[in-house]
Amino acid sequence: MSTQFDNLTKARERIRAAYNPELLREAGHQLADRLADHLGRIESSQEKVLNWEDPAVNSQQAAEFLALFHGDDAGPQEPSDRAALTPKQQADRFAKLIDAILARGQNLQDPRYIGHQVPGSVPIAGLFDAAGSVTNQVMAIYEMGPWATAVERAMVDVLGQLIGWQAGEFSGVVTHGGSLANTTALLTARNVMLGDAWEAGAQSRGREPVLVAHTDAHYCIARAGGILGIGTNNVIRAQLDDRRRIDPNQLDETLADLRRNNRPIVAVVACACATPIGAFDPLNDIADVCARHDVWMHVDAAHGGAACVSERYRHLVSGLERADSLIWDAHKMLFVPALCAFVFYKDRSHRFETFRQDAPYLFDPSAPGLAEYDSGLLTVECTKRAAALGLWGTWSLFGKQLFADMVDVTFDMGRQFYEMLSEAADFEPLHEPSCNIVAFRYVPNKLRDASPERLGTFQLDLRRKLIRSGEFYIVPTSWQGTGALRVSIINPLTTPDHLASLMQTLREQGADILAER
Amino acid sequence: MSTQFDNLTKARERIRAAYNPELLREAGHQLADRLADHLGRIESSQEKVLNWEDPAVNSQQAAEFLALFHGDDAGPQEPSDRAALTPKQQADRFAKLIDAILARGQNLQDPRYIGHQVPGSVPIAGLFDAAGSVTNQVMAIYEMGPWATAVERAMVDVLGQLIGWQAGEFSGVVTHGGSLANTTALLTARNVMLGDAWEAGAQSRGREPVLVAHTDAHYCIARAGGILGIGTNNVIRAQLDDRRRIDPNQLDETLADLRRNNRPIVAVVACACATPIGAFDPLNDIADVCARHDVWMHVDAAHGGAACVSERYRHLVSGLERADSLIWDAHKMLFVPALCAFVFYKDRSHRFETFRQDAPYLFDPSAPGLAEYDSGLLTVECTKRAAALGLWGTWSLFGKQLFADMVDVTFDMGRQFYEMLSEAADFEPLHEPSCNIVAFRYVPNKLRDASPERLGTFQLDLRRKLIRSGEFYIVPTSWQGTGALRVSIINPLTTPDHLASLMQTLREQGADILAER
Repeated sequence: MSTQFDNLTKARERIRAAYNPELLREAGHQLADRLADHLGRIESSQEKVLNWEDPAVNSQQAAEFLALFHGDDAGPQEPSDRAALTPKQQADRFAKLIDAILARGQNLQDPRYIGHQVPGSVPIAGLFDAAGSVTNQVMAIYEMGPWATAVERAMVDVLGQLIGWQAGEFSGVVTHGGSLANTTALLTARNVMLGDAWEAGAQSRGREPVLVAHTDAHYCIARAGGILGIGTNNVIRAQLDDRRRIDPNQLDETLADLRRNNRPIVAVVACACATPIGAFDPLNDIADVCARHDVWMHVDAAHGGAACVSERYRHLVSGLERADSLIWDAHKMLFVPALCAFVFYKDRSHRFETFRQDAPYLFDPSAPGLAEYDSGLLTVECTKRAAALGLWGTWSLFGKQLFADMVDVTFDMGRQFYEMLSEAADFEPLHEPSCNIVAFRYVPNKLRDASPERLGTFQLDLRRKLIRSGEFYIVPTSWQGTGALRVSIINPLTTPDHLASLMQTLREQGADILAER
Repeated sequence: MSTQFDNLTKARERIRAAYNPELLREAGHQLADRLADHLGRIESSQEKVLNWEDPAVNSQQAAEFLALFHGDDAGPQEPSDRAALTPKQQADRFAKLIDAILARGQNLQDPRYIGHQVPGSVPIAGLFDAAGSVTNQVMAIYEMGPWATAVERAMVDVLGQLIGWQAGEFSGVVTHGGSLANTTALLTARNVMLGDAWEAGAQSRGREPVLVAHTDAHYCIARAGGILGIGTNNVIRAQLDDRRRIDPNQLDETLADLRRNNRPIVAVVACACATPIGAFDPLNDIADVCARHDVWMHVDAAHGGAACVSERYRHLVSGLERADSLIWDAHKMLFVPALCAFVFYKDRSHRFETFRQDAPYLFDPSAPGLAEYDSGLLTVECTKRAAALGLWGTWSLFGKQLFADMVDVTFDMGRQFYEMLSEAADFEPLHEPSCNIVAFRYVPNKLRDASPERLGTFQLDLRRKLIRSGEFYIVPTSWQGTGALRVSIINPLTTPDHLASLMQTLREQGADILAER
């Protein structure tokens, strides 16, 4: 018994050392300087954009750090030594680990990062998140995260009104990512449109529901069909026009056919915008068609919802306010760190249709009115981190204007890049951009008569070489079945000079590839 | 055209001010001191545990902060003024917002916080998360987050081997929360066990699958039935023994009945532990039964998985290594901030059964081997934050020993609290605890002969008064249909003195309630 007591005394000592506020202070100051120095370097392109390393090598190194300071199994002597380290000594170890993180990642705030739809985020937004992480502010029920809840609701109110809705009529909630947000909204649609799907199953009594989705919808939409028990085979593609937007007339016919065949329709999924080339659907026309057939209209506005904050680009999402549900990722074009995705319902009475349960230990009959503020009733997450803190803090500091600025600058740059590509003899833009997403090809003279396959493979090889060089980060896409290049100019620090330099770098690295062959 | 150009010049100026590394530096230093000071106060109980405020009031205040520095709509003069603020001035505004966050939340590192299964987390873990948030490190595909991916894989390897598996044979991935983790694992089970459910739907061709779950399983399990198209009516409860653990004999009969009736079985869901009283299922016996009927065994080890790191408590999860799938929340008993939940599969060949798709623009044929490192193939999230950074950093700094210490201390405290309750004439523990979860009632003399309803209501009223006073944070539960009290001693700073003080405070506040009547 006395050994046991001894052990726990030492255990408590080690725990107190780990929780020492002075360690947090020392480490926090080290972190502030390291992050600021790093940011200074990457914003001025003094580092590689992507620190490419083979995944097996990185994984091995990450494992080695786990044992760096005390061996694999934290041998018997080490723990007491560790408790004896001063906060300053421990913070120095912390700094080494931070250096490892900063040296091995992707540098999204480098203006040459213009890749996936993940932004070079406003750096200070991450510090608001840090206040939430260090103090572990969470939600699920209001009392666990009163301010986290309040902050989220404030942002829901602001964004919902920017969509065009009246305060008090709509409902919204934050969840972890656009895929989960789309799945959540479509679960709500399924439950509302199919009656007893929640209790009896999605296909009970032989019904065969379908989901009708934009042909270029993000892969999470077809996945939602698989997840929600509808079946991916029952996800029907809405036909597109020549600008890769849903064609309302063809949609009308599709829905009429489905109605004639008595197929229950879970929802129509429109995009604002679709990911491949950033095409914005004609939302008003689609809303008319959905209304005619009494179908739930969902809009994946993960990327384009942010147009609501911009006078210049608001027109792209005209009709968004007619959607029954929509999603809007703040961690895309509102430039906060991942993940902060909003799900919205036009009619707030739908907010409790997603799940139809309660957990008695969570939802307390001694204060039933509070359930309205319990986020866990609305999200797949039970415990949920305070994911809206970064957005709330950044909005409080800089106002709506900063967000409008970032949308305006990056969307404008899409157009500008398109013009640069059009003017160059050796580049081929693949579409007129509506926003900051541009797909294109580099077509050097030598490949002017190459087969589409050869040209496509060249694009993918060129991109692979480019990103491993650390000079730029852009992404691959496919166009008419073969490879192409694509940028999301989702970094408000990127200028036309950077884009000109991208084109020049592609020429040089392309020449290298052609010379190697 | 010149006005447009002017506007964008000003917009770029405002953006550069927001992205200024010196603002990040100033704000970071302010944050470090504020967090350390706050932590010092709350760890020594100088603040209220919960800063209770009415949700409508908090929401209104959160909305007011959005306009504090520049009015509702960021009027025309303000933006240029804002760009002209020095980083120091802007950081002072930042500090005001941080103060607002810290003054209005739940103080989980106060040792009097022993509430939901959300820990008083290791503070410095949140600083590792901050490095990820400020630089926006994400996953989905390896190249977007090479180090984030490596760190997650290193932790998957360590934890999987602690479960008892061989390196290279199992698979694991991090997702945002235990509910999503359970849903993901059960989706995999559904797809494996039902053949074509992903493509054709969960109930295609009239099949009526069931899910068999611990009666006290977390609400997310029944929800998974609703989400995955099985239907909550088809979630069958496994019967429990007198310690609220699954009874293997009754489970055997249930499965035999289902097989006789040709009902496809998605999975059996066992708990390690179940939330109400922290009961650990007899996993080896359940594994035997599942093997006999060829049924997928899933274990919700969100809370108790951490017993794997403790020599003292490893026995509680004996047989865990026989599960086909399990989840383990690092943001519970590994004491990192939310959210960091692990999903594990014993057989790594199951990892790609969850979703059966690809997204051509994500998964690049020019480097097909990399798909093995693309987390987006395994999780509902496409873009995913670097959720394992906090765990990796904390483990690297302090070794496994700290985690073992925290499990040992808090689990021991559960037993200790039980003994204190048992010895007190006016308290009633409702079960022998297996870990750090203890349900109990305060039964003052005056209520010794009260009806169960009256006594239950008294517990809920007492708790409501207690948490609003800010003296302690504990949670309500229900026991045999009426209210009771419950603690999760999920704070390694809590000592027996704090628990004695909790009992004394309940006596005093209970007397106040009884006097009021």
